[in-house]
Amino acid sequence: MAQQIRIERTKSPKQKPDPNNLGFGKYFTDHMFIMDYSPDKGWHDPRIVPYAPLQLDPSTMVFHYGQAVFEGLKAYRADDGRILLFRPEQNMKRINASNERLCIPPIDVDFAVEAIKTLVKVDSDWIPDGKGTSLYIRPFIISTDPYLGVKPSSTYMFIIILSPSGAYYPGGINPVKIYVETSYVRAVKGGTGAAKTPGNYAASLKAQADAEKKGYIQVLWLDAIEKKYVEEVGSMNVFFVIGDEVVTPSLEGTILPGVTRSSAIDMLRSMDIKVTERKITIQELYDAHEKGLLREAFGTGTAAVISPIGELNWEGKIITINDGKIGPISQKLYDSLTALQYGKAPDKFGWVQEVK
Amino acid sequence: MAQQIRIERTKSPKQKPDPNNLGFGKYFTDHMFIMDYSPDKGWHDPRIVPYAPLQLDPSTMVFHYGQAVFEGLKAYRADDGRILLFRPEQNMKRINASNERLCIPPIDVDFAVEAIKTLVKVDSDWIPDGKGTSLYIRPFIISTDPYLGVKPSSTYMFIIILSPSGAYYPGGINPVKIYVETSYVRAVKGGTGAAKTPGNYAASLKAQADAEKKGYIQVLWLDAIEKKYVEEVGSMNVFFVIGDEVVTPSLEGTILPGVTRSSAIDMLRSMDIKVTERKITIQELYDAHEKGLLREAFGTGTAAVISPIGELNWEGKIITINDGKIGPISQKLYDSLTALQYGKAPDKFGWVQEVK
Repeated sequence: MAQQIRIERTKSPKQKPDPNNLGFGKYFTDHMFIMDYSPDKGWHDPRIVPYAPLQLDPSTMVFHYGQAVFEGLKAYRADDGRILLFRPEQNMKRINASNERLCIPPIDVDFAVEAIKTLVKVDSDWIPDGKGTSLYIRPFIISTDPYLGVKPSSTYMFIIILSPSGAYYPGGINPVKIYVETSYVRAVKGGTGAAKTPGNYAASLKAQADAEKKGYIQVLWLDAIEKKYVEEVGSMNVFFVIGDEVVTPSLEGTILPGVTRSSAIDMLRSMDIKVTERKITIQELYDAHEKGLLREAFGTGTAAVISPIGELNWEGKIITINDGKIGPISQKLYDSLTALQYGKAPDKFGWVQEVK
Repeated sequence: MAQQIRIERTKSPKQKPDPNNLGFGKYFTDHMFIMDYSPDKGWHDPRIVPYAPLQLDPSTMVFHYGQAVFEGLKAYRADDGRILLFRPEQNMKRINASNERLCIPPIDVDFAVEAIKTLVKVDSDWIPDGKGTSLYIRPFIISTDPYLGVKPSSTYMFIIILSPSGAYYPGGINPVKIYVETSYVRAVKGGTGAAKTPGNYAASLKAQADAEKKGYIQVLWLDAIEKKYVEEVGSMNVFFVIGDEVVTPSLEGTILPGVTRSSAIDMLRSMDIKVTERKITIQELYDAHEKGLLREAFGTGTAAVISPIGELNWEGKIITINDGKIGPISQKLYDSLTALQYGKAPDKFGWVQEVK
């Protein structure tokens, strides 16, 4: 798919938001990328156009049957002014894995990465340069047939939008309190848990809201069948340091194969730290804590990179991890990954791509 | 909520589709109902306006996190010209149950039924009058915050659209061949299976598409945990006649509490037929078939009312039910329910509401 991306620049650029008050996902840049799919033309008419509302018939399938997928990644402004992306091809490979599960036609990975780079370049003056800030990139695909029958849509739109975002930790990294969810379930084998699709997030809102009412910032999901294996924390993958080993749930089809998860595993191993992907029970974590072996716990994801866990509440049994402070492995991993992302460390993994 | 519904009539009515070629969910009427929600105003500004595309920011939450619910019901044209609805308050109670699971603020049931009736009246010349035809009614709620954080939206739209639809069985009722799904899963306890929310339907597309490739029209879903209990067939509830008893899966939180399901149970009991809601294993059905006791099987839903099952394929073991023909109980139930819906039989249950 060696298609030309048509570029139509806005005639009325927006005022940029206060760089010290960006938050996350609230402001959007001047342009967006759009590409359409139809059975006869395949993916076609790739274009960068002024950011504007989508006009969709009320019967459009995505509103009714949720056939959609998305991704999330970031563009970083290095100190020397370069614009860097972190493993964008991994996100575009994953959107195709999600597409497969959701019966959406695949996109060309290289072309999609090119589309991301072209859009980021067009809106490059929107990339904030404050410490820890970034330009959040949201590629997504929606089903667009104006039809109420339950079947895969025949038409789709692939869209990329950009949102300048503030530092995740403006006041330094604070470990979070996590509620171990035992009633609601995020995903089950045979379902859509390994895909990045809207329904997974819709299903998670109630547990999240209930946890917040109890004073917790996120939930730790357990498996749907035995309610004993840990799966994800909120919308992040989860890691534990037990003794001298780092463990993380193996990919069994119910959790998202995170790009930060995979990078964290490789990065830890490059530091000669043992990492094991396997099934982990919540009881095992509590037993390890009892023995003084549960040294650290953290989530990994694009937004926070590393989010240390300071407290777990499992059916009223509360444990504090590393005195509620960030541990040495979490800190080292955060520093190493962000150093790569912001171009401050040599890229021995070949993970960083420059937007030129 | 005693709000006035503002009505703005179209100045350019559409040409009506060929009444003999309506299909399902393809054509939409001249108007739609819309009502907005914001935290300060609650549900407000109910209005009937010309049917038109929705204009939504690309960051609108429903595209990304699928926080949405919907319903489906029909308006029927009786032989004497009256316009009838079948238990619309049940659909509006159920949308509130779905709202609760999806963290969407509840609507006023009576007002929502009034909104349906007002819209149907405005577009009453769109109700087809051919045998078995109807006006399909699709109420739905979408989350509308232009924001990429994963949390319940603070704003919503409640929309009702109408679609004139053809007879489900233009050539008489044909029992369908059903594939018993053993890999993919529709829902699990603690998930969203009992809610009518887009993600459930997105999750079902792949199994449905695979079954069609094997020559089957729908799948029979099994429970996610033991893969032995039957749950739903496609997007319908399922019933079996074993000996002189009718059995249907009990509502355990993973299947949709169908309005047609509930009506079928009451109707069968009024005919002095024993109906039991309980857990049913697929093995039990095959054993009953072996003994000659599995007399009938059928799905229930708004679209088909009753959809007889003529064949099951469970891991290659194929059984034919009632020689692949519709059975007497299925036929009697179909006739009784449709007679009520089209105003041909006295409404001793109080299920039918006239749009005046």
